[in-house]
Amino acid sequence: MAEAATNQVRHLKDLNTLVSLSKRRGFVFQSSEIYGGLGSCWDYGPLGSILKMNVKRAWWNAMTRRADIVGLDAAILMHPTVWKASGHVDGFSDPLVDCKDCKTRFRADNTESYLTKKQCPTCGSKNLSEERNFNLMFKTHMGPVEDSGSVVYLRPETAQGHFVNFQNCQQSSRYKIPFGIAAIGKSFRNEITPGNFIFRTREFEQMEMQYFVKPGTDEGYFNEWKERRLNFYLKYGLKKENLQFKDHDKLAHYARAAVDVEYKFPMGFSELEGIHNRSDYDLSQHAKFSGKNLEYFDEAKKEKYIPYVIETAVGCDRLILAFMCDAYREEVTVETDETGKTTEDVRIVMGFHPDIAPMKVCVLPLSKKEELTGVSMQIRDQLAEEFDVTYDETASIGKRYRRQDEIGTPFCVTVDFETAQDQSVTVRHRDKMTQDRVAISQLNEYIRNGLKNFSNK
Amino acid sequence: MAEAATNQVRHLKDLNTLVSLSKRRGFVFQSSEIYGGLGSCWDYGPLGSILKMNVKRAWWNAMTRRADIVGLDAAILMHPTVWKASGHVDGFSDPLVDCKDCKTRFRADNTESYLTKKQCPTCGSKNLSEERNFNLMFKTHMGPVEDSGSVVYLRPETAQGHFVNFQNCQQSSRYKIPFGIAAIGKSFRNEITPGNFIFRTREFEQMEMQYFVKPGTDEGYFNEWKERRLNFYLKYGLKKENLQFKDHDKLAHYARAAVDVEYKFPMGFSELEGIHNRSDYDLSQHAKFSGKNLEYFDEAKKEKYIPYVIETAVGCDRLILAFMCDAYREEVTVETDETGKTTEDVRIVMGFHPDIAPMKVCVLPLSKKEELTGVSMQIRDQLAEEFDVTYDETASIGKRYRRQDEIGTPFCVTVDFETAQDQSVTVRHRDKMTQDRVAISQLNEYIRNGLKNFSNK
Repeated sequence: MAEAATNQVRHLKDLNTLVSLSKRRGFVFQSSEIYGGLGSCWDYGPLGSILKMNVKRAWWNAMTRRADIVGLDAAILMHPTVWKASGHVDGFSDPLVDCKDCKTRFRADNTESYLTKKQCPTCGSKNLSEERNFNLMFKTHMGPVEDSGSVVYLRPETAQGHFVNFQNCQQSSRYKIPFGIAAIGKSFRNEITPGNFIFRTREFEQMEMQYFVKPGTDEGYFNEWKERRLNFYLKYGLKKENLQFKDHDKLAHYARAAVDVEYKFPMGFSELEGIHNRSDYDLSQHAKFSGKNLEYFDEAKKEKYIPYVIETAVGCDRLILAFMCDAYREEVTVETDETGKTTEDVRIVMGFHPDIAPMKVCVLPLSKKEELTGVSMQIRDQLAEEFDVTYDETASIGKRYRRQDEIGTPFCVTVDFETAQDQSVTVRHRDKMTQDRVAISQLNEYIRNGLKNFSNK
Repeated sequence: MAEAATNQVRHLKDLNTLVSLSKRRGFVFQSSEIYGGLGSCWDYGPLGSILKMNVKRAWWNAMTRRADIVGLDAAILMHPTVWKASGHVDGFSDPLVDCKDCKTRFRADNTESYLTKKQCPTCGSKNLSEERNFNLMFKTHMGPVEDSGSVVYLRPETAQGHFVNFQNCQQSSRYKIPFGIAAIGKSFRNEITPGNFIFRTREFEQMEMQYFVKPGTDEGYFNEWKERRLNFYLKYGLKKENLQFKDHDKLAHYARAAVDVEYKFPMGFSELEGIHNRSDYDLSQHAKFSGKNLEYFDEAKKEKYIPYVIETAVGCDRLILAFMCDAYREEVTVETDETGKTTEDVRIVMGFHPDIAPMKVCVLPLSKKEELTGVSMQIRDQLAEEFDVTYDETASIGKRYRRQDEIGTPFCVTVDFETAQDQSVTVRHRDKMTQDRVAISQLNEYIRNGLKNFSNK
């Protein structure tokens, strides 16, 4: 069952390839698809939901298994004054313009025809409204009365949860500065122009960490976190040449430094993560608006201060997209027959890092006969005690290997007619396509070690 | 360092004990506390966020590691027609009454003074409005224009995501009926009377599984799932005497059977989970409203039908509360001195199942001297590669053990002055309070096996 050597490797060229693979194989579906979809909302399917958990778990462990960072899971709904203090009620908006002729509404700050010629991008009319600021926060009402007193917002970022819980987290954990708070959760922004699959959506998941430091030490920690975050991406398999740092051209008035980690998506280099030195702005604002003293007291040095904050903020969905883009490859084998006619055989592989791959192993009986499927299901159950595992008994074994390659499963376990005799199975490696004979009693350990030391060399 | 035997065990009497422990130790904080809080919203702190992850992980694995259930992670925002089809736009409401004198607004269906005497529960006035239905869904607007066409809802349940994705999940996974879809996610209900800590909140997390079966086989599967779900709770340590099934008195018009799993909270037996036979109602409704054919085709038998659905729906936050209530115990040791005066020593233990406990192990240097703290931090890092681990170097060793008991940490690892010589540490068991000497090189394996075979006997 040796598989042919590869002549050529092709990488991902456009997002549509992934959109289509995602739907076909169960990574990502359009939200409410049977109703024609809902603008830029996406649902993670059987494989995508596990892929997403794995990405979140990798980030969460990288953060909270450190001795200086605690976790947090704050509610999406927060007190409305939080968003006054943070500046979002007044400042988190896009400027919009209405065309009075064709009724198109568009952004004033990035619409070419408006910026250059003050005309409508749709009909060319110059009969336009004034620019009007449109707040990007979703607004709703809590409690039975819809009046201004009951307005609450869906949070546009998780970070404010870290700031308002700063003292509770510090005091309950008794951590000393420098220390951080890490959280993963949904945020919502009423974007005018979402798009590029799961890159920019109105509902999205963030992975944010706020690291609280003594003023004056902030520059050093900012640089440390830049390096750590880059290493995180390299560790989980993003190619170095697809990553770059991009300093912000303009800094927010409170920021002392800001850089994006950018990934080379098919549509170009775009932000994956922001790393910011936010000074003491956020805690000072919340101290002012809440009337609470949010200073930190350093007992050893008998000093009080409002800490500075180094923030690392990742878009979880776009990171998933980056992992998918980077993992995708087509291995092309060209065969020439006697007449000189060539045919291409294409093996599609999602070469996910084993920690990220949704399914770790697939169990495949060589035939659908009960003597093989019975023991195969037992092996599936044995593996499922420890791993996300899938099972496939349809089609030829070669075709089934390809199915697993396409979803990035690191190992395939084939149960054949010898299995009953030697109590062993054949384990095939996704990237190397090598095969090992392994005793069923040793299988979990083989897979466990194989995942830990996974290598495509 | 032998610890005293216990004379008496006290269990939890009221929720306030947990509210206070939760804040002090970092399980749960009031949301936006520095701003006076936000009605019935709670944030999970450093320990609570991990506790919650562990509870979700236990449920998720119990579901998706089966050979017949796939996972899903659908967006909170869905097409508004979903909620017309599901019946929520028309029927998901509470009847409210306004007092025209004191302006109190209250529920007509469960306010005693109104039901018996038609008077206001606050001022006793009979000058009341008509009953008016108040929809419990949070409403917001998507896109820049606030008109009726842009209204979207925050989902009041995750289940509809399963139904609208039924075909995508089935086709991409190629599972055959019977099979299920499991999901965990936030839902929102604008409850008039939330309360009892994290038992009933307006923003909450659900863990729902929809099991699609052939009509006629539904009763059998309903009973199977009842048994499975009860066993899940027993496996993770809820006491049998605190659990009961409660059949619904009235069934929804589409339901063929409905039962709650109830847990004996301090305020009485209350719902933890609902198990429902929903017939083919949901898929039929979505077929009708979307115009799509949602029949399943059984290839082997050449039959087409709309599957019936057995639903299991758990409130994640209230399950966390149940685990905390059940885990809490006070071990009282009464000591009598020579004068006959007795003193009570109370050891508070959160006796979590080891899979649920937020921290698996704590590392404790016997003293703060660098010769102990250095190696202790190395041991911490070694354990952190695999476990959620905490570290404590303050106060006496006895006091530090108690701190870990109070948050339910199964194992404490003490680094003492012999450690440098024998490369070993003392491991103390949370429940038995026994101590073992373990080589540092064997420590991860000892903890791993200890968690797997954890026993308080």
